[in-house]
Amino acid sequence: MRNEVIAERLEMLREELRREHLGAYIFNTSDPHNSEFTADRWKGREWISGFNGSAGTAVVTLKSAALWTDSRYFIAAEQQLAGTEYQLMKLKIDGTPTIAEWLGKELSDSDNKEVGADGSTHTAADIEELRQELRQHGGLTLRTNFDVLQRIWKDRPMTPLNPIMLQPIELAGETTQQKLSRIRKALREVHADGMMMSQLDDIAWTLNLRGSDVHCSPVFISHLLIGSQQATLFVDECKLTAEVKSYLTEQKIAVRPYEMAGDALQKWGEWNILIDSDEVSEALARQVKANEIIRKPSPVPVMKAVKNEVEQQGIRNAMLKDGIALVKWLRWLKPAVEAGGQTEMSVSRKLEQLRSEQPLYRGLSFDTIAGYEEHGAIVHYEATPETDKPLESRGLLLVDSGAQYQDGTTDITRTIALGPLTDEQRKVYTLVLKGHIDLQLLHFPDGASGTQLDAIARAPLWKAGLNYLHGTGHGVGAYLNVHEGPHQIRMEWKPTPLRKGMTVTDEPGIYLEGRFGVRTENVLLVQEAEDTECGRFLCFETLTLCPIDTTPILPELLTQEEIDWLNNYHTEVYNKLAPHLNDEERDWLQSTIVRKNSN
Amino acid sequence: MRNEVIAERLEMLREELRREHLGAYIFNTSDPHNSEFTADRWKGREWISGFNGSAGTAVVTLKSAALWTDSRYFIAAEQQLAGTEYQLMKLKIDGTPTIAEWLGKELSDSDNKEVGADGSTHTAADIEELRQELRQHGGLTLRTNFDVLQRIWKDRPMTPLNPIMLQPIELAGETTQQKLSRIRKALREVHADGMMMSQLDDIAWTLNLRGSDVHCSPVFISHLLIGSQQATLFVDECKLTAEVKSYLTEQKIAVRPYEMAGDALQKWGEWNILIDSDEVSEALARQVKANEIIRKPSPVPVMKAVKNEVEQQGIRNAMLKDGIALVKWLRWLKPAVEAGGQTEMSVSRKLEQLRSEQPLYRGLSFDTIAGYEEHGAIVHYEATPETDKPLESRGLLLVDSGAQYQDGTTDITRTIALGPLTDEQRKVYTLVLKGHIDLQLLHFPDGASGTQLDAIARAPLWKAGLNYLHGTGHGVGAYLNVHEGPHQIRMEWKPTPLRKGMTVTDEPGIYLEGRFGVRTENVLLVQEAEDTECGRFLCFETLTLCPIDTTPILPELLTQEEIDWLNNYHTEVYNKLAPHLNDEERDWLQSTIVRKNSN
Repeated sequence: MRNEVIAERLEMLREELRREHLGAYIFNTSDPHNSEFTADRWKGREWISGFNGSAGTAVVTLKSAALWTDSRYFIAAEQQLAGTEYQLMKLKIDGTPTIAEWLGKELSDSDNKEVGADGSTHTAADIEELRQELRQHGGLTLRTNFDVLQRIWKDRPMTPLNPIMLQPIELAGETTQQKLSRIRKALREVHADGMMMSQLDDIAWTLNLRGSDVHCSPVFISHLLIGSQQATLFVDECKLTAEVKSYLTEQKIAVRPYEMAGDALQKWGEWNILIDSDEVSEALARQVKANEIIRKPSPVPVMKAVKNEVEQQGIRNAMLKDGIALVKWLRWLKPAVEAGGQTEMSVSRKLEQLRSEQPLYRGLSFDTIAGYEEHGAIVHYEATPETDKPLESRGLLLVDSGAQYQDGTTDITRTIALGPLTDEQRKVYTLVLKGHIDLQLLHFPDGASGTQLDAIARAPLWKAGLNYLHGTGHGVGAYLNVHEGPHQIRMEWKPTPLRKGMTVTDEPGIYLEGRFGVRTENVLLVQEAEDTECGRFLCFETLTLCPIDTTPILPELLTQEEIDWLNNYHTEVYNKLAPHLNDEERDWLQSTIVRKNSN
Repeated sequence: MRNEVIAERLEMLREELRREHLGAYIFNTSDPHNSEFTADRWKGREWISGFNGSAGTAVVTLKSAALWTDSRYFIAAEQQLAGTEYQLMKLKIDGTPTIAEWLGKELSDSDNKEVGADGSTHTAADIEELRQELRQHGGLTLRTNFDVLQRIWKDRPMTPLNPIMLQPIELAGETTQQKLSRIRKALREVHADGMMMSQLDDIAWTLNLRGSDVHCSPVFISHLLIGSQQATLFVDECKLTAEVKSYLTEQKIAVRPYEMAGDALQKWGEWNILIDSDEVSEALARQVKANEIIRKPSPVPVMKAVKNEVEQQGIRNAMLKDGIALVKWLRWLKPAVEAGGQTEMSVSRKLEQLRSEQPLYRGLSFDTIAGYEEHGAIVHYEATPETDKPLESRGLLLVDSGAQYQDGTTDITRTIALGPLTDEQRKVYTLVLKGHIDLQLLHFPDGASGTQLDAIARAPLWKAGLNYLHGTGHGVGAYLNVHEGPHQIRMEWKPTPLRKGMTVTDEPGIYLEGRFGVRTENVLLVQEAEDTECGRFLCFETLTLCPIDTTPILPELLTQEEIDWLNNYHTEVYNKLAPHLNDEERDWLQSTIVRKNSN
């Protein structure tokens, strides 16, 4: 059945392309702040294609249309693109052309060799790469100053105008003046007089402010221009409460309209400005008029990644609350499933409700992934009313969830045996746990990057012919985004060293298509281990407080050291959570401390 | 006491610098082939400074002189530079200036802002980097076409003229025509019509020829220019035996004088040539006249790194012979030490003699490192008559050695308890062995690089606050250089994946200054493990056949799996070597199979 809505939108688009003499237009998945999650206003790729996955690029020519996405979304994209003229392009599959290769062919007999893309939703680095590739394939050129959605998306959502809140110093732990002073010092070291910040969580961190413009992320749409003496926040003034206005005045931070950020960049005449091409949009970067543009990574993400003592304590408090809600939920879960009528969506709602009862709760930190049995094998599964699976008293339920509390952000995955399991499930469950524990037991030299540690969590799985294609760990914000960089634990080269005070997740998993998925995730804090004649060593403190299901474990696959870790962890979880639980919950929690011994 | 020899050489040098209006001259440690080990002709840095370490750079201005080297050589350099005007510059130590920074200051008040360096002993990439750095520090320029040593080094050794030998197809396993055809295919894929090869082991591998121009490396000084139809070897014709001459004629490989390589590069007018800037000297690269210079890595090192079946069998044969010699030596060692009179040098000579009795022996693959007790903690220790330490029946002797056989190259390290040890020695010995075994037990996904695996060998050491600063593993040639790339197992990012058929060493170690050193090294071969729904997995076959001293082991630090590996390894060593040993040696070898059990 033809999708008339999408057909009509494509017709409007092509009329504009003809008017502008463009051969094609590229719709990516981002916003003017290189966000992972965007406000609805920037969901143009979804609007023009009908595909709502979190990653994908739609490209439309006058006669054809195609959508590129990765393996997480092949099935969903196929369903959602049915009835449209979009061809699905499967990334990293042999024979799939790149966007430039495809456009080179599609436009080979076209008079219009120019391609459009909105420079405000692409980073400067993205556009530079795209421009080069298009030139190589059929000599195509790229126009970035024409946002076609402004003309054709009639009911396009506005830029969000939600109010901005102070993050008090009791939770932030460092004043904005101290942060600005550290940033300015870092800029002087690379001979920069200032920098443009666009990344929303960097701005929120620097100014000790929080917003609610993006689903699950406590950030607000803005740019921040930092000079050696002054700083200017480009934001809609109506979002500022009287309190925030006077705070910004105190901090000597000027406020100008969001749309004026580009104008301001044109007045840097005699100074040097740092522009991080992987952060700032091409639309902004192209307006800079400065003595010198220093293209280097922003110093802010690493500063933000290292949590100060106050932030660390806040995260510990948030973990305690999250643990209480999770224990209440876990105790409820199996009997509820036995009673019947529970589904992936219903148990997710229950968990959300229990979290919302905790103090300083501000919402979820991402949409809950609750995948039962074969749904657990779909890495980015999100249950919908159409897919929502009833839960039975058998098999594995994978739940990856997290919350925003004003004192910290959480992210946890537990895989729960709802009843009897297969031998394969028990083996995979135990090996994932083994990798998960081994990373937490690791000590490592100060200066090591996550790439250098990644194999520790995978080695037990590799030996059984198992592997996962996602990363092992990412940073987690302090009441900020649930995914933070720049450090990561993953196979791809990520050179940023893990430093004392950084948070990082530990989340190995295995996904066996059509059968089940297992993932176990804690949030860790990098701590000092010891100084020796061989150097300084770091280790991990486990922040997450929630029991790990021991019923599926095959103890013969674990070493005594791993079993000891698990027993100690459960004792710690009990000791910290018990005072906050009622008798029934406390008894249940105590029953999770099964002292396993290796055979 | 003033070193008159060096003083006189510096005087001659400065006379030439003044004549050429140069402010300074840089002497590096390399040759026109970017070799790790060079023929004596290119040991100019040693000649001008008196420092004979394997790494270092001497820089001389009209009024000052300095020598940069790394921590392996701080002590030796200090001794050897005593009595000269050289200032020792310790690399990677806080406060040590770079060469460009130092020159910028030294030449700030000089009229001569030009610095000299021999472009024929620097790669094109090195010179480009140096040129940029010198420009940034005081606007210095670099002259690379003046080899000052030609003027002042009166008794400079000639380019070696040793005869070249055929490596028969029974040992090479692939004809030169097949290799050339693979290389040409790889060149076509990057749109190159040809390439210049300078790396000596790449040339020897491609042509199935071997030489003896470089100490311990069976290579011959030459360049090889490969075109789409023809190939030209630039080599001194007097090195070619009649057999090799007729072989080259058969293979349609033209021969021209070594010195004419640069001339040939000037005639590539309409074609595209690949130049690997990390391989080809600046002196050659600057002469290229071609339609396009394609600056990419040479495809040959990866081809050479993957050993074919015949090479693999040759290496296994070489390992058998090496194992026989090593067992004879190990059986002899402890009684000989007890009898008295043995030193680091004397036991090294004994080992060399035993190896030389094996068929197809062609020499050592590197100078033996035999370090007793505190000398074992010096990573690149080489005993001299002055340092040679008498061995006693106590403590640890670290011996890293290897041989060239015509069927394969070996590289092995064993640390041997000559008698009673301290508790610390036993603990460190066991943990090094644990890391060594864990890497051999690993399975890993096809496509993983050595950087991604490196932590497996280190993790047991890190947990005890121990670490080593060298790499964990390097490739080993098939009757070629003992150090081969481009794959490596080390903490620094080396993206080349480990592929089936590659050799790689496994050599963790710990060095406790002033006390002792431990290293245990086997050569491994990458093999297929299994194909599963999660992908293709690889594993390691251990090629080295030599018992590992079990007397220092603290079994409680090993897992049962690690102990099983050790017992199985010793059984395999026994089964393979026993038929080639006399009764006495066989009994001794059997006594090494101590079935340890964990407590």
